[in-house]
Amino acid sequence: MRKIVVGVMGPGEKAKENDLRNAYELGQLIAQQGWALLTGGRNVGVMDAANKGAKAGNGLTVGILPNDNQDGISQAVDIAIFTDMGNARNNINVLSSDVVIACGMGAGTASEIALALKGKKKVILLTDDKESQVFFQKISPESVYVVDNVVHAIATIKAIL
Amino acid sequence: MRKIVVGVMGPGEKAKENDLRNAYELGQLIAQQGWALLTGGRNVGVMDAANKGAKAGNGLTVGILPNDNQDGISQAVDIAIFTDMGNARNNINVLSSDVVIACGMGAGTASEIALALKGKKKVILLTDDKESQVFFQKISPESVYVVDNVVHAIATIKAIL
Amino acid sequence: MRKIVVGVMGPGEKAKENDLRNAYELGQLIAQQGWALLTGGRNVGVMDAANKGAKAGNGLTVGILPNDNQDGISQAVDIAIFTDMGNARNNINVLSSDVVIACGMGAGTASEIALALKGKKKVILLTDDKESQVFFQKISPESVYVVDNVVHAIATIKAIL
Amino acid sequence: MRKIVVGVMGPGEKAKENDLRNAYELGQLIAQQGWALLTGGRNVGVMDAANKGAKAGNGLTVGILPNDNQDGISQAVDIAIFTDMGNARNNINVLSSDVVIACGMGAGTASEIALALKGKKKVILLTDDKESQVFFQKISPESVYVVDNVVHAIATIKAIL
Repeated sequence: MRKIVVGVMGPGEKAKENDLRNAYELGQLIAQQGWALLTGGRNVGVMDAANKGAKAGNGLTVGILPNDNQDGISQAVDIAIFTDMGNARNNINVLSSDVVIACGMGAGTASEIALALKGKKKVILLTDDKESQVFFQKISPESVYVVDNVVHAIATIKAIL
Repeated sequence: MRKIVVGVMGPGEKAKENDLRNAYELGQLIAQQGWALLTGGRNVGVMDAANKGAKAGNGLTVGILPNDNQDGISQAVDIAIFTDMGNARNNINVLSSDVVIACGMGAGTASEIALALKGKKKVILLTDDKESQVFFQKISPESVYVVDNVVHAIATIKAIL
Repeated sequence: MRKIVVGVMGPGEKAKENDLRNAYELGQLIAQQGWALLTGGRNVGVMDAANKGAKAGNGLTVGILPNDNQDGISQAVDIAIFTDMGNARNNINVLSSDVVIACGMGAGTASEIALALKGKKKVILLTDDKESQVFFQKISPESVYVVDNVVHAIATIKAIL
Repeated sequence: MRKIVVGVMGPGEKAKENDLRNAYELGQLIAQQGWALLTGGRNVGVMDAANKGAKAGNGLTVGILPNDNQDGISQAVDIAIFTDMGNARNNINVLSSDVVIACGMGAGTASEIALALKGKKKVILLTDDKESQVFFQKISPESVYVVDNVVHAIATIKAIL
């Protein structure tokens, strides 16, 4: 039977220290709930940190890679999906997640939030970036949740599920 | 030899009256420059208006459709590309455009802007939505241009090209 | 660390009785090797049978779905990847598989074999369809393996890995 | 109004001399009918030859590229669609073609034929490769047409349209 999948999206190379810490803890807490973790699968930034956290929590990790091979894959990914679709794979990331959490902000992350909202998904923003909070809550007030820590994020996922 | 392609992105069913008028005029002016117009190809909103404007200007129109057949296609599309990829086709829209203009705002349009910026494209915002101007200029200050009318938009395209 | 993923491809609604039996047994044997099973994820034909076999063998099953929601998903899929890409997802199926086994034949299966060969993957044909054996071995003699039973298929996978 | 689009598919680097000659002539004849030509858009093999033929016939050429930029694009492509999807773009090639002609054979071409048949498209085989004729006619007898010269191919397109 299908497992619940929680997607953690966020910057790669440009992730901030705080985003990485949140991503790691989110990964760990998601794993402890018995949910599978889904990320963009690369060995940098929020993706890598969340995967490592989930493995520390004995979870199952799914990585949706932009390329067609293992170059640049997070070593903490269990199931790798090689799309060879570049950033178009961002739509698969969000469609395959029961809930999407954005941990940090950037162009790629913004595309995932927007695609999630377009696809009628609920999105949790874990970021102190005020402009993105204001923007996405205006775009889709009923589907965007702003939280300020990982415990609140997990509680929000439970409420949504 | 490859034609210059200008992409006009914007809301479908939820487009505002002003966005539709701008889209029509943009389509017409783009055609008059000899550029091809690229849109999401549907028979609603900004897509349809821009295509109609381009045909009024004797231009060539390319529609990148989300589905696999002609249902819902703008009658003003000359070349239809059927992707059957839903919103993942938004990435193709922006990668295939030499410059992207967002005419209005919504979740789909936001995904196109974000994917364009992720793909190192220049994006022109023709919208009075202040939150989106602030948000995207913060994401990518060097690649986002805010304009307030279609003539300014065309001049900005020329400067970029 | 990334799990080994074996892809089992084959017809949906038009699968033959023998293909279904082979698919079920393949799923079971793949699971018993500790490999993850990857299929197109639908609740019909070879996909469904292979997933059920893998679950009978206590395996992990990954389904790469053509649509964007759970309609028509095999109940034996653990991890569902919703692509909303129709048959273009066939390329993801094969790129994400360490080895591809075709169990039966049809237009969709043929596309997966051809995409696998184009992507430099090894393909095992478990089918008594002579024309497909001849055709694909001519296309790519060094990458196509013809087997006539599931035990031989598993041995061939081991040799390839 | 939407133009009729004829897709010419065939090998890239490995195209035979005869395939190239056929592709050039097909491109020219397609253009003379007023149809748009669609190919995979690269500057090699059947794609490049067909595009050059179409331009010699004053036609309009559409190239659906596997990558995200102009590297490797046929100079005879008018409208370039950059998918960044690798071989998954083969599905777009066939869905966007009113009729598909395969000119020569190889793994990529085979994937396009199979995806076309899966997508309920008519496919014309212009190849002396007997194994592929037999294979695809068995897969989909009602949708595959075998021809042995370009004039016959054009007549078959007209009959289909």
